[in-house]
Amino acid sequence: MLEIHRAAPGDELLTGMVNGRMGRAKVCSLDSREAVLEVSLDRDPPPALGMDLVLALPRPPVFRRCLSAAAAMGIKRICVVHTRRVEKSFWQSHALDGAEVQRQLVLGLEQAKDTIIPAVSFHKRFKPFVEDELPEMIKGRRALVAHPEATEELRRGVKPPVTVLIGPEGGLLDYEVEKLREEGFECVSLGERIMRVETALPYLAGRLLS
Amino acid sequence: MLEIHRAAPGDELLTGMVNGRMGRAKVCSLDSREAVLEVSLDRDPPPALGMDLVLALPRPPVFRRCLSAAAAMGIKRICVVHTRRVEKSFWQSHALDGAEVQRQLVLGLEQAKDTIIPAVSFHKRFKPFVEDELPEMIKGRRALVAHPEATEELRRGVKPPVTVLIGPEGGLLDYEVEKLREEGFECVSLGERIMRVETALPYLAGRLLS
Repeated sequence: MLEIHRAAPGDELLTGMVNGRMGRAKVCSLDSREAVLEVSLDRDPPPALGMDLVLALPRPPVFRRCLSAAAAMGIKRICVVHTRRVEKSFWQSHALDGAEVQRQLVLGLEQAKDTIIPAVSFHKRFKPFVEDELPEMIKGRRALVAHPEATEELRRGVKPPVTVLIGPEGGLLDYEVEKLREEGFECVSLGERIMRVETALPYLAGRLLS
Repeated sequence: MLEIHRAAPGDELLTGMVNGRMGRAKVCSLDSREAVLEVSLDRDPPPALGMDLVLALPRPPVFRRCLSAAAAMGIKRICVVHTRRVEKSFWQSHALDGAEVQRQLVLGLEQAKDTIIPAVSFHKRFKPFVEDELPEMIKGRRALVAHPEATEELRRGVKPPVTVLIGPEGGLLDYEVEKLREEGFECVSLGERIMRVETALPYLAGRLLS
């Protein structure tokens, strides 16, 4: 508040309660140790995007950017999975630490003026996740996997809620795509161009939903 | 070829001629100094996106990522402009050097398997650019400016060709928006959520075009 907003007593700041409502806070007093605020939370955060994300763990800097972009766009559930072409070393990265994940999510929420922290879960074993957890997760929703080799191109304006899986940079194996299909995923292509994960994610969100 | 592809004589590699056609190259011989390839270029690169980009210069790491993302998505014209809320120091960055711009564009093209290098131009003076260059550039096209305070939300499926202007992190000034409107730009909002430039760019492309 002192450094970024250069706030002083009497100022009003946009405020939100984590996982709660949003509004304004009047600064009553402020020093380097403590701020006394008069907070009035009078409105709800913006609606969620209606898109859950299943993301093959990308390399750590990309993962960080995907987290804050997903949070900014209003994605509220992110399952991070291992697939064959995910480098095992990525799983050792500090980018997966709870505090670091939280930090990226909050950055995204601050950017978009939202308060609802997305739920992020990690699944290091692909098959049990797909067989035991995905079916429950996609019940009553459309489920799409972005796959360059799919013959069907992604249509626009899919009705939410939808679950989207984005594979690793090297792509999914045929075996993995087959497994997802068995559980009810539709395979769609984003066109001829193969995009990086961090580009594909907002591109997909823009194309799918409004 | 040696390090990434671990290519050996007899191998076939995907190949493209800069600003030309694409095809395959058979490795005839290869050492650390020289490669002899038998190249057959038998197809055209993928179609362009039909969207020109006018981008307020973002901070250098974001600018680099925007360049490669724009190239990967098939944007073929990028005008980088100064606006009031662009930090002047950004114009000193090495990210604007010709070789560095080229490097990011080529990264994006390689990712998307495309050969046509986008044209990138820099315009350090907003008003002369808008008054003297933009009108010619947007003739016969739709021109949109993404502006959080616009009352009209961006519709989906705009017919290309289109020119899109993305403002700086701090937003455009009212004066700047007015100037753009006078030259024929429509003001559209991307919804309640304010996104970072690098998220807004592919989100916009996905939402506008296919």
